[in-house]
Amino acid sequence: MTERPKDPIRPTDDEARRLAQSLIRNARFGALGVIDPETSVPMVTRIAVVPGPDGIPLTLISTLSSHTAALDANPACSLLIGEPGPKGDPLTHPRLTLQARAEVADKAALKDHYLTHYPKAQLYYDFGDFRVVRLSPQKALLNGGFGKAYHLTAADLVGS
Amino acid sequence: MTERPKDPIRPTDDEARRLAQSLIRNARFGALGVIDPETSVPMVTRIAVVPGPDGIPLTLISTLSSHTAALDANPACSLLIGEPGPKGDPLTHPRLTLQARAEVADKAALKDHYLTHYPKAQLYYDFGDFRVVRLSPQKALLNGGFGKAYHLTAADLVGS
Repeated sequence: MTERPKDPIRPTDDEARRLAQSLIRNARFGALGVIDPETSVPMVTRIAVVPGPDGIPLTLISTLSSHTAALDANPACSLLIGEPGPKGDPLTHPRLTLQARAEVADKAALKDHYLTHYPKAQLYYDFGDFRVVRLSPQKALLNGGFGKAYHLTAADLVGS
Repeated sequence: MTERPKDPIRPTDDEARRLAQSLIRNARFGALGVIDPETSVPMVTRIAVVPGPDGIPLTLISTLSSHTAALDANPACSLLIGEPGPKGDPLTHPRLTLQARAEVADKAALKDHYLTHYPKAQLYYDFGDFRVVRLSPQKALLNGGFGKAYHLTAADLVGS
């Protein structure tokens, strides 16, 4: 058996911050993790993602969905973004895990911004059951590929 | 504001079962949701996925990773599989949310099976810090696109 270094976390530097910010800027969907209020078991679903005007991720979700009910019961959540391409080992592709708090945002005020970044949502943005939610990061884990992991703070994610 | 039907869940049929089973069979990675043992906040990370010989998803993960520490503290987890292609609205692409229990599996016995489905893992399968974990589903949510959601049982997922 091959033994490897015990701590795979590297010191956070500007390159890690830039990579994390670029993953947020370019995300159009991601995997949202919430706690199922009935069972306390995690539940991961796909959501749309748009970078907010302040660099904080936004999503447009339906109040009919099980993730919205879960966030109403407990706003602590996680968002994974950074999608592998069709080639290579998906585990070498950079990705970012946010641990965040969900906050309902101003849907009317954000309409133009959201639709500029996600034009297909034009079809359902105004449905009464949809709301815009801001996923305000508390901290993050950046994985730039094997052995290249970084812990980031909320400040690291929004630039200086 | 447009109002829509209150319950987007459809009755589970054979087509839904077949789609769910095919998403498991074809997954090579997914988004794993666990509970962070320090904060109780969800944490979603990317993991490799291989369908087990019995149709239950397997993953090869390192004991150095934060998701493994979380699963040791609480084996309740969730796995999202079914990756969107490069075109179209990612929210119309079928995906499957499993709510599962993580169980350590027999790494030596599963080696040939795992590497047949995921040849790139040859490089690190034998590292001493890696283990094979079986994600045994308790229930699942299949989303086949807008308004096409189904609840599935563990039996629905492994065929008859």
